[in-house]
Amino acid sequence: MSLLLAMTGWHVEDWRERFKALLPDMPIVILGEPFDRRSVHYVASWKHPEGSLAGLPNLAAIFSLGAGVDHLFADTRLPEVPIARVVDPDLTTRMSEYIVLHCLLHLRQQRRYDSQQRQSSWEDDRNQPAARSVRVGMMGLGELGQDAARKLKVMGFDVAGWSRSPKSVAGLQTFAGTDGMAPFLARTDILVSLLPLTDETRGTIDATMLAGLAQDGRLGGPFLINAGRGGLQVEADILAALDAGTLKGATLDVFETEPLPVESKLWTHPAVTVTPHNAAMSEPEAIATQIAAQIRRLEAGEPLEHVVDPARGY
Amino acid sequence: MSLLLAMTGWHVEDWRERFKALLPDMPIVILGEPFDRRSVHYVASWKHPEGSLAGLPNLAAIFSLGAGVDHLFADTRLPEVPIARVVDPDLTTRMSEYIVLHCLLHLRQQRRYDSQQRQSSWEDDRNQPAARSVRVGMMGLGELGQDAARKLKVMGFDVAGWSRSPKSVAGLQTFAGTDGMAPFLARTDILVSLLPLTDETRGTIDATMLAGLAQDGRLGGPFLINAGRGGLQVEADILAALDAGTLKGATLDVFETEPLPVESKLWTHPAVTVTPHNAAMSEPEAIATQIAAQIRRLEAGEPLEHVVDPARGY
Repeated sequence: MSLLLAMTGWHVEDWRERFKALLPDMPIVILGEPFDRRSVHYVASWKHPEGSLAGLPNLAAIFSLGAGVDHLFADTRLPEVPIARVVDPDLTTRMSEYIVLHCLLHLRQQRRYDSQQRQSSWEDDRNQPAARSVRVGMMGLGELGQDAARKLKVMGFDVAGWSRSPKSVAGLQTFAGTDGMAPFLARTDILVSLLPLTDETRGTIDATMLAGLAQDGRLGGPFLINAGRGGLQVEADILAALDAGTLKGATLDVFETEPLPVESKLWTHPAVTVTPHNAAMSEPEAIATQIAAQIRRLEAGEPLEHVVDPARGY
Repeated sequence: MSLLLAMTGWHVEDWRERFKALLPDMPIVILGEPFDRRSVHYVASWKHPEGSLAGLPNLAAIFSLGAGVDHLFADTRLPEVPIARVVDPDLTTRMSEYIVLHCLLHLRQQRRYDSQQRQSSWEDDRNQPAARSVRVGMMGLGELGQDAARKLKVMGFDVAGWSRSPKSVAGLQTFAGTDGMAPFLARTDILVSLLPLTDETRGTIDATMLAGLAQDGRLGGPFLINAGRGGLQVEADILAALDAGTLKGATLDVFETEPLPVESKLWTHPAVTVTPHNAAMSEPEAIATQIAAQIRRLEAGEPLEHVVDPARGY
């Protein structure tokens, strides 16, 4: 039995070396090279080509090499075997770093001071809202959202969360479902999106959602931080809300098209911070270690962990 | 008996209103207006003019209106009465916001991505060190330093602290005194300065100190964050270290001369972030409330809190 590596855009050789070291007894085969399709019991995928995993008669499990699994469900011919996500504490830490960084950046008006510095201007109206007077809304309360919410609370922010189905998180005011969205948005000064990309969430950050954000907050207007998936956002609506002044600023790590096309107005908009989809990169070693442990678990007859629900898509 | 407000650069009328509301039975007098010097039992000062507090025969205590007290000790004719600092949880929270923001900004190479955004450049070498692999050195372990250190640990950083006299802080590796400085600097990738300004600490952030910082860290060179006092730093040495490449970047909230003169090279240096001494501004209400409580405590025969040691200067 073998592990098939199926990826695009990444250095497959590096991954082969990592898995060889971790699973010395398991043959590692690579999509694009010749291999016996019957030998493949496991697949580790990052954006494998559509249909390339069909016709693997002994396939037992598919592992996503990243936190998202939407790249898997994008394949209409994906084999019906259990799919496992990576739940990497290191990735969680990095995502929280990014979210806390950008919430603090907006709270402390760092972009204003950046702009003043470019003009050698020492100016301060001493109007610095305290973190406790700024309401962060965490959209998505999985591992990542809960960790970021906890750390934002440590920093003093007034944090609430929204999830599709009701969730109880210690110390956090939570909202759920369609009915919970309007009151959640109405109390949100900084909206953080960590939703998974599914048919239901595609394009959810649109003019309607942005219009629902609090306009009475201490920051002089609401902010958006999307570190989830680019498919969640309607970029034309974000730009329109920024230009209308109903959105005060945005930090975007993900985009409808990646890399972000050079002609996108997001690059040059003064109220937008663009980062190249690097909010939470796992160290490849950590991901490979977790997948190898899962394979050893299956080989020992133990159940797979972090299994994705295909009906929900995450 | 009365409370004398002695300040320069601030709106004294706003402070008079605040104290009137909090201490309705106490006459509030203002330096520069006529008042009976014998009536003054308490002084609240922010940078009072040299010698202006001499000749107050019934003075019982001086309150600093900010966290620093160096502005008081700058007065060689300061009366020998107990001096109390402001210890404001709100000010502590704000200082930690600033320090966590700028540590994360350096960790996540945000200045690099800012610069790439200006060029509409989507580029990433995927080299993102984890917070746990980056060593923050907190110089100064008072209320502010301890709170910031704790929050940096929550974010995942590898934090150690240095203080003049040995201090034990739960969960923190600490160094102390002259002997502890070299090993402290040698394990520091991001040096955070929260030292008070005293004769001993003046000019302490100089070429020698900067040359002692770690050159083997994951960020490609050490960073400096000074949110303490401008008098701690030798700006010519900071600029020289940046240009020599032994210092990779700096965030400075305080300066030798404030406002920072328009001709300072710090304004335009690409590796320097300048903020206008606003890392930790207290809400005036919180400061006034604390001083009013201290006055009520003294009137009730209870001891003064947060008393400064004149020998140490903080």
